[in-house]
Amino acid sequence: MTWNRREFAKLGALGLAARVVSPLSAQPAQRQSGYAIIGLGRIAAIFMAGIRNTTNSKVTALVSGHRDKALRIAAQYGVPERSIYNYENFDSIASNQSVDAVYVALPNSMHAEYTIRAAKAGKHVLCEKPMATSVADCESMIAACKSAGVKLMIAYRCQYEPTNLKAVSLIRSGAIGQVQAIESAFGFNIARGEWRLVKKMSGGGPLVDVGIYALNASRYLTGEEPENFAAFTSVVDHDGRFTQVEENVSWTTRFPSGIVAACNTTYGGQMTGFFKVHGSKGWIDVDPAFNYDGLRLRALYTGNGITRLDEPNPARNPYQFQAEAEYFSHCIQNGLEPKTPGEEGLRDMRYIAEIYRAAGSSL
Amino acid sequence: MTWNRREFAKLGALGLAARVVSPLSAQPAQRQSGYAIIGLGRIAAIFMAGIRNTTNSKVTALVSGHRDKALRIAAQYGVPERSIYNYENFDSIASNQSVDAVYVALPNSMHAEYTIRAAKAGKHVLCEKPMATSVADCESMIAACKSAGVKLMIAYRCQYEPTNLKAVSLIRSGAIGQVQAIESAFGFNIARGEWRLVKKMSGGGPLVDVGIYALNASRYLTGEEPENFAAFTSVVDHDGRFTQVEENVSWTTRFPSGIVAACNTTYGGQMTGFFKVHGSKGWIDVDPAFNYDGLRLRALYTGNGITRLDEPNPARNPYQFQAEAEYFSHCIQNGLEPKTPGEEGLRDMRYIAEIYRAAGSSL
Repeated sequence: MTWNRREFAKLGALGLAARVVSPLSAQPAQRQSGYAIIGLGRIAAIFMAGIRNTTNSKVTALVSGHRDKALRIAAQYGVPERSIYNYENFDSIASNQSVDAVYVALPNSMHAEYTIRAAKAGKHVLCEKPMATSVADCESMIAACKSAGVKLMIAYRCQYEPTNLKAVSLIRSGAIGQVQAIESAFGFNIARGEWRLVKKMSGGGPLVDVGIYALNASRYLTGEEPENFAAFTSVVDHDGRFTQVEENVSWTTRFPSGIVAACNTTYGGQMTGFFKVHGSKGWIDVDPAFNYDGLRLRALYTGNGITRLDEPNPARNPYQFQAEAEYFSHCIQNGLEPKTPGEEGLRDMRYIAEIYRAAGSSL
Repeated sequence: MTWNRREFAKLGALGLAARVVSPLSAQPAQRQSGYAIIGLGRIAAIFMAGIRNTTNSKVTALVSGHRDKALRIAAQYGVPERSIYNYENFDSIASNQSVDAVYVALPNSMHAEYTIRAAKAGKHVLCEKPMATSVADCESMIAACKSAGVKLMIAYRCQYEPTNLKAVSLIRSGAIGQVQAIESAFGFNIARGEWRLVKKMSGGGPLVDVGIYALNASRYLTGEEPENFAAFTSVVDHDGRFTQVEENVSWTTRFPSGIVAACNTTYGGQMTGFFKVHGSKGWIDVDPAFNYDGLRLRALYTGNGITRLDEPNPARNPYQFQAEAEYFSHCIQNGLEPKTPGEEGLRDMRYIAEIYRAAGSSL
């Protein structure tokens, strides 16, 4: 069985927003929320392409240290030159009425500063994961947004993605019975020289960058908060890349119900993100689970007979970024609290610190 | 790409015995080693069916507490009535010249006693995994076989199975580069009333029974011995099944090189045994990896171009048991030490004890 795009979009909307509104597509957008994009790297480019596919969002400002690059992108997205900011004059964005929100796509260590400055400028904040590089920074970001009365959403794109939502919905429906155990992993073989290898900028190694997907998945799949972690960090390749951050992290989690999750992350190996969920009546296997597209859900469970699912997700990048932007704009336009607020990012940051502590390392 | 049976058989023989002898099939068997089967349960039935497919092994005696059952099976395998033993008169098997070896397929807690009694009767021993229910028992079994001058092999069938051997050989060849991380799991949803749930008979829960496959795989895939374990045990289902043994175990292992392995096992969920190995140049995914048949290896790695493998193993049960019996008989007939001797079972038993200790439980 496979789904067409429309069915997938519908599922996403249902899983995501069913409690607050009828499917988004059925509602003509009241207006378009304007976004200032802070940091013009690879993920920002994908996010902007995603925004272009929405009806309720648009790119209205750019924030970059590279004016040439900003001018080029401004031309593509119809951003006027006066709405291009640099990191010095950023705070003057407060008076730019075309900007409702910012999208923070900077190196991790800069998330806190620009979230707080954006909040002080009266702008809502959609911040990439990991939320920050310390628990204290996460707390400051939440406090700043609260006191400014702006919304803060962490860009956990998988929580707005139909294949992941389908897995959650199968589990909640009881299809695979009582969940017992989960395996999940995500990683890649990192190139020398990436800012991610500089701890001051990244806050940590693959755990904060991509392992966080497995950690977050173990939480949304179970619907529980971890009780305990046990973990190891390691470096296999002594080739100069891993002098500041770890190469591998392997951890296991026990949830209050007794469900366990065994997870890995790496900066040294080819590791397509996946998760497997084992229940008393069946299993769900999503592989790839965390890529930008090409996701695939397989499942087998027994109830009235045996059900087998094999559902490649036909949606193409940047559909996940489109969904995120659509959802956050919807929250802004309707005064709703995002389902992945700053508190969700803070929780993962606390768990990441616990994993490092369990491994005898520090964040 | 798929292989035919002959190619698979060849691979198995090469991976297994290439260092000691040219492919087994090329050598006419000198004679047939005779096996006494101790315990006539499900796995013994499969082993005997496997033996029937060999040219160098045969079933020559049966040991059972159920004479009727033994008589029925004896008729099937041409075992004379005088070669049927019970647990009282078993030691008289010493004088039975048709018996070269025993296959111990009893509940775990009886492995030590019957291995030691068989050794004292001058018979070689092929013992099912887990080797025993304690480290001390494993040590006694090894000592008894040594002092009797008989061979002791633990029935780690996956170490004699072509798909698993292919994964090992791909890794050793460097095809996927430097291995970083492994995920593996194996479990099932156990029926009420099984002897496996009685700790005195089993020695432990799913870890000793099926988790041992993931543990053993992490060792033969890396070719390293674990340095550390971190683990949790848990019970999710408070339905009376798990009063003596755990329902789930989740553990992580760090190997000396820094390779990590995250593993799960369960008695409460549907969990097809699998492993994924992530290397710097690619990955290997064997799923199913530990079943009696239907195994499938997929891999992707880059070297001179990109290589993609998708190799379902066409061999059918009881091919793994056939390979085990063939190999052990070959060792007996040629005075060779099995590659999974008692020491291999002892190592896993020590690691299992460490995992339980790390989880705050005891074996």
